[in-house]
Amino acid sequence: MDVAVRVRYGETDQMGIAYHPSYFVWFEIGRTELLRQRGLAYRAMEEEDGCFVVVTSASCDYRAPARYDDELTVRTRVSSANSRRIAFAYEILAQDGRVLATGATSHVITDRGGRPRRLPERYLRALAPSAR
Amino acid sequence: MDVAVRVRYGETDQMGIAYHPSYFVWFEIGRTELLRQRGLAYRAMEEEDGCFVVVTSASCDYRAPARYDDELTVRTRVSSANSRRIAFAYEILAQDGRVLATGATSHVITDRGGRPRRLPERYLRALAPSAR
Amino acid sequence: MDVAVRVRYGETDQMGIAYHPSYFVWFEIGRTELLRQRGLAYRAMEEEDGCFVVVTSASCDYRAPARYDDELTVRTRVSSANSRRIAFAYEILAQDGRVLATGATSHVITDRGGRPRRLPERYLRALAPSAR
Amino acid sequence: MDVAVRVRYGETDQMGIAYHPSYFVWFEIGRTELLRQRGLAYRAMEEEDGCFVVVTSASCDYRAPARYDDELTVRTRVSSANSRRIAFAYEILAQDGRVLATGATSHVITDRGGRPRRLPERYLRALAPSAR
Repeated sequence: MDVAVRVRYGETDQMGIAYHPSYFVWFEIGRTELLRQRGLAYRAMEEEDGCFVVVTSASCDYRAPARYDDELTVRTRVSSANSRRIAFAYEILAQDGRVLATGATSHVITDRGGRPRRLPERYLRALAPSAR
Repeated sequence: MDVAVRVRYGETDQMGIAYHPSYFVWFEIGRTELLRQRGLAYRAMEEEDGCFVVVTSASCDYRAPARYDDELTVRTRVSSANSRRIAFAYEILAQDGRVLATGATSHVITDRGGRPRRLPERYLRALAPSAR
Repeated sequence: MDVAVRVRYGETDQMGIAYHPSYFVWFEIGRTELLRQRGLAYRAMEEEDGCFVVVTSASCDYRAPARYDDELTVRTRVSSANSRRIAFAYEILAQDGRVLATGATSHVITDRGGRPRRLPERYLRALAPSAR
Repeated sequence: MDVAVRVRYGETDQMGIAYHPSYFVWFEIGRTELLRQRGLAYRAMEEEDGCFVVVTSASCDYRAPARYDDELTVRTRVSSANSRRIAFAYEILAQDGRVLATGATSHVITDRGGRPRRLPERYLRALAPSAR
């Protein structure tokens, strides 16, 4: 699932490139939009179903810098999912299709109090791993 | 009340100076530390007393830039306070004492649901406006 | 000039609403898009013309909270402009048209080294104050 | 090398815990302070020596959440270093000593224009890998 993000001024640092933690913010936008495309709203998942998708690990490999006002594509796919754990993989692409960065995040499902819980069936169905 | 903050790399932008919204983050650190110095923890205020200090207005005048790794002083005072509203004033000082920025924020007190409520008496006493 | 922004998860705080300094980031997006709509790229303004639009003051009045995943409209207009100074005014609107916040920023034009300079004529023409 | 950071209000999200990309900001503070403890200023490294320490990969494993106003310890060590590449390892510790997160970053040395270059000898000497 592809979503566009434009690099904000405040996302740059004095090196003149996008600040590296910003990529994890973009990954989160990728996850949210992948869910939305599959008919789910992460907001409703928290508010109505009391399901929280908590990050347990996150990584990013940076190949080439992104710059202010660049329009990037965040490409997100589900790499694995069961009722307790989900993992996503990401690519950040430049407008010419070059891969600027790749990343991955792993998550557990918790309730509002941070205790592990199972993902309701309809979320699990929607989160079937993406074809590559 | 003075508290030191050091400009973080991610707080700079490609202009090579601290990104202007960062000052409002530093103001918030100033408020938290002013409360702490007066024996109050904003964290407990929310968690134990269900009092939220919600920002209703915020402003900053920027006189001279702050740069990466600069050690700044955030000088905070209560400019007015009653059981429903609090206002703070701020100065951001360089190590040589120059004023880099001044600012102000206004706040209302709400409960967890965002409804206006009164500040408990002991907070109000502690928040007596600062002598200038 | 209207541009849409969606509230990011990381832009919320533990109060469950958009963190107040985020509005200044959205104002910046408004400025960038207003320039773009008028045929100018702020990026080129810095890179090619060595013109930096430095913030000298910023303020925001918060009327009602914005929440995660809300799609907001940033409405930006030029409130005044001459070859040395520009000022913008902003409204943040909810999808139902309610004004959630209003704001203003003032700027001076500098060169790369932070020294005041004049805005080239073609930028000044493009930045004619917006009709209200 | 240990440095203390206190979780800022704006670093929390609506889950009520520190937002996961914040940890990479804290890792950066750890690197800066490790350099400073060894007599080096990253700021001078960029400004005077034209050496930029660019992130090529970053990862974090999150074991337990950090909360607003928690005072955390960022423990940083050099895991490997040569004249072209540096790697750091991190732990984020709660006040009671529990490890809340571990992380790692890899870096290459570049000049101002982003081209690979060698790290000057005195930096390399100072960056000898930490004893575990």
